[in-house]
Amino acid sequence: MQANAIKNYLNALNNNKFFQITIISVIIFSALMIGVKTYDVDPSYLKFLTAIDIAITYLFLFEIIVRFIAEGHSLSFFKKAWNVFDTLIVAVSLIPIEDSEVVLLARLIRIFRVLRLISIIPELRILISALVKALPPMGYVLLLMFIIFYIYAAVGSLLFDDINPVLWGDILVSMLTLFRVVTFEDWTDVMYETMEIYPLSWIFYLTFIFLNAFVFLNMMIGIVIERMQAEHDSYNLENDIGEVAEMKHIREDTQAILQRLESLEKQLSANK
Amino acid sequence: MQANAIKNYLNALNNNKFFQITIISVIIFSALMIGVKTYDVDPSYLKFLTAIDIAITYLFLFEIIVRFIAEGHSLSFFKKAWNVFDTLIVAVSLIPIEDSEVVLLARLIRIFRVLRLISIIPELRILISALVKALPPMGYVLLLMFIIFYIYAAVGSLLFDDINPVLWGDILVSMLTLFRVVTFEDWTDVMYETMEIYPLSWIFYLTFIFLNAFVFLNMMIGIVIERMQAEHDSYNLENDIGEVAEMKHIREDTQAILQRLESLEKQLSANK
Amino acid sequence: MQANAIKNYLNALNNNKFFQITIISVIIFSALMIGVKTYDVDPSYLKFLTAIDIAITYLFLFEIIVRFIAEGHSLSFFKKAWNVFDTLIVAVSLIPIEDSEVVLLARLIRIFRVLRLISIIPELRILISALVKALPPMGYVLLLMFIIFYIYAAVGSLLFDDINPVLWGDILVSMLTLFRVVTFEDWTDVMYETMEIYPLSWIFYLTFIFLNAFVFLNMMIGIVIERMQAEHDSYNLENDIGEVAEMKHIREDTQAILQRLESLEKQLSANK
Amino acid sequence: MQANAIKNYLNALNNNKFFQITIISVIIFSALMIGVKTYDVDPSYLKFLTAIDIAITYLFLFEIIVRFIAEGHSLSFFKKAWNVFDTLIVAVSLIPIEDSEVVLLARLIRIFRVLRLISIIPELRILISALVKALPPMGYVLLLMFIIFYIYAAVGSLLFDDINPVLWGDILVSMLTLFRVVTFEDWTDVMYETMEIYPLSWIFYLTFIFLNAFVFLNMMIGIVIERMQAEHDSYNLENDIGEVAEMKHIREDTQAILQRLESLEKQLSANK
Repeated sequence: MQANAIKNYLNALNNNKFFQITIISVIIFSALMIGVKTYDVDPSYLKFLTAIDIAITYLFLFEIIVRFIAEGHSLSFFKKAWNVFDTLIVAVSLIPIEDSEVVLLARLIRIFRVLRLISIIPELRILISALVKALPPMGYVLLLMFIIFYIYAAVGSLLFDDINPVLWGDILVSMLTLFRVVTFEDWTDVMYETMEIYPLSWIFYLTFIFLNAFVFLNMMIGIVIERMQAEHDSYNLENDIGEVAEMKHIREDTQAILQRLESLEKQLSANK
Repeated sequence: MQANAIKNYLNALNNNKFFQITIISVIIFSALMIGVKTYDVDPSYLKFLTAIDIAITYLFLFEIIVRFIAEGHSLSFFKKAWNVFDTLIVAVSLIPIEDSEVVLLARLIRIFRVLRLISIIPELRILISALVKALPPMGYVLLLMFIIFYIYAAVGSLLFDDINPVLWGDILVSMLTLFRVVTFEDWTDVMYETMEIYPLSWIFYLTFIFLNAFVFLNMMIGIVIERMQAEHDSYNLENDIGEVAEMKHIREDTQAILQRLESLEKQLSANK
Repeated sequence: MQANAIKNYLNALNNNKFFQITIISVIIFSALMIGVKTYDVDPSYLKFLTAIDIAITYLFLFEIIVRFIAEGHSLSFFKKAWNVFDTLIVAVSLIPIEDSEVVLLARLIRIFRVLRLISIIPELRILISALVKALPPMGYVLLLMFIIFYIYAAVGSLLFDDINPVLWGDILVSMLTLFRVVTFEDWTDVMYETMEIYPLSWIFYLTFIFLNAFVFLNMMIGIVIERMQAEHDSYNLENDIGEVAEMKHIREDTQAILQRLESLEKQLSANK
Repeated sequence: MQANAIKNYLNALNNNKFFQITIISVIIFSALMIGVKTYDVDPSYLKFLTAIDIAITYLFLFEIIVRFIAEGHSLSFFKKAWNVFDTLIVAVSLIPIEDSEVVLLARLIRIFRVLRLISIIPELRILISALVKALPPMGYVLLLMFIIFYIYAAVGSLLFDDINPVLWGDILVSMLTLFRVVTFEDWTDVMYETMEIYPLSWIFYLTFIFLNAFVFLNMMIGIVIERMQAEHDSYNLENDIGEVAEMKHIREDTQAILQRLESLEKQLSANK
């Protein structure tokens, strides 16, 4: 009974507007603090910042617990991806890191608390969901691009390794170089270097750029069309179903009228 | 009575084609003069330019006053954003700046008078309104991009500060560096520098580039689809309303026909 | 009579498939020759090339005359933009340039003969027409972009002239520098240089980049939507006109049926 | 009889899930091996890799033979482009290359075996087919772009040859330089160099960039619209055919009703 009262109280607290604004403010404040720390700050001030850091961690922990109890069933709480996401961030923040060597990792973890901004603003959560949904149709195109990169990297590594091992040393480094070529970043320097040994190597670069641009362009166009078609169809289907149904009703009426007229004629003929 | 006569006269002047063309010509002329001043001009010629400058300022003031009086109600004049915009530009031009130190500011203000070209050409005004309307749907995507920039800048500032404080000194400078990476401007130089200390730091850059490209791409596609859907729906709605209304009329007719036939049959049966 | 016979003969010649293929082959051949001349060629070979050049010029002249006579009316010939275009190219090729100083100009003119490839291939002519038609809707956006460029160039020239007169010397040079910034070509070098004197000048560059990207993006989206809407509407209009007309016919029928039934009922009532 | 039994057995083997997964695994494994070889590997290990290489080649040969016999008719096997593609890759792998000089070619050929990943994954095969289909509508635009490149390259080669023969030496090198300008890769360096001799040569670069950007942009938009229209029309046609057919039926009914009523009226008049 008492447990239920606590649950109700926490549920009310969780839905309380003031509580939610406080949490958002704390997240923004902790994000700003991370920014402040990148500047040279007074050591005495730094201690103060560390204290605030711990306070924020415990406030986040408190908020997660409130939401967890308010949910009622612990399982349904963890079924929502965003809850798992929030819990992970808070849990990792709690790990005590005393060792000065791992202090870098501790600070990195604190930065990722800014991601909670995404999970707390509903519009951003919707946006992320939409973006994740857009991934699968790109899957095979990305695989195709990876194969193109892999083959060109293998060829590049085979032919140009002796020319510049920094750029073409192994297949991974070659793929990085090819990505650089795709972004057009000093790609001519890379090309001119290999053209001194293999004067026709511009074919290698130009076919690579055209292949990637062509595949990428078609992927983009394909996704635009697919998505528009999907929304368009769903709209039209609904609309057409209505019109076609109306037409069928009219047709039924006209058929009924014809039958009635036929029987009427027969009646009249009999009447004669 | 006399005030009204003046108002009518100014209204006629404001709508006078010749008056409007004169104003546009003066704005273009003042724009050209700003361009001319960036070249080395004869000091004697410069005095002449300054005199013209003052003349233009007073002509602009005169035009604003004409439009203000022609409008009638002073409040309705300032309700239009473009009027406020024009008044501000003219008002700021009037501030007397004698001090040679602030002369730079005075010249900057005069440049912004070119913006009056936008407020005086109706087509450009419509264009600007359309652009401003396109901003809100981009709002949350820009916020998401800012969060991504902020987190990567914090991480970059934390890890690479000792490698190159010019590029990664604090969070603001890091964000500028990341913007540079996004524009692909010598981004490999930035990357190769940090890869010497952290060989895996290419993951930092590539994930950042892919995240931004992916979010940006989806935003663009989303906006295209949203806007097309909006126009398409408004068109279809209007169109469908017409068709559906026509169908309902037909249906009503067929129903009426059926009822009449029923009563006719009854009549005939009774007639027998 | 004889003049007419010549006209008919030339008309047949102009529409002759073999004649057309010959002309296309000669254009391609003259294009290839222009390419060949950019390599170091034997002087004796060069004389041969010059002879061919003259032959091609006269063949082009012959073809234009054939088409001109075949057309019949000289006025209708020059009403077609492509004919004027062809005549101009041929006419300019005929100007005798002996002076060695203007020999460069003569060679430049010969290069433009390659443009005849566009006027002789119908598909390319259609493409060019479509491209020219796409220009007007872009007009005001380009004007807006020009105003943005002009204002930023004036501001840049005013503030940064003393820092680097090569990049910001006058308004034209500043606009070229800003175009370079828009293409992201070493734009950070330009920015870092001015940031040493004005640390906040990154605002100048970033607002400029964002403004242009934003305006450009919206222009592109706008054109896509406008063109699709235009084609979509023309399709739908035709389609809807058909459906609505059919519905009106049905409505007229049902109304007629109702009137007939009414008169029938009255008849029956009178019959009783 | 026995031959048929073998054919059936091989057909079953070819459609066997385990056999297909084995082949895909071997392709991926051979792709990974190509990657591994770009790193410095132990000579003893290298012998092992060569042995595996030969094994893979024979396994591929075995798979092709299985598919060939399973197909039944040898002609129908080679009618499918993908089968020809696979056969070619395997056939080329079989050519014995002993000479150490051509060993590079042998290794290059082995890299192209990775392309079999595309032919064995159905989704990638569909993707490639779609991409190949998208090529023809781009044909004339690419031809137009080539003509623009060719003319500008001829002009550039004519004017700038003496300034920098490395960039503008002949027409091919000039086209490569122009492609570099189009990718915005250090294009200002190319421009500033020629502007020292011809101060107005920025017109050459800017018109070239605008022409290409404009043609490319329009091509992209054109393809998007064409493809959407195609899918949209095919959908609408089907849909409209249904609606129009339904309306025609209704119209026939209402016409029939009118005729019947007319005859009914006549009957009644006669009855009187």
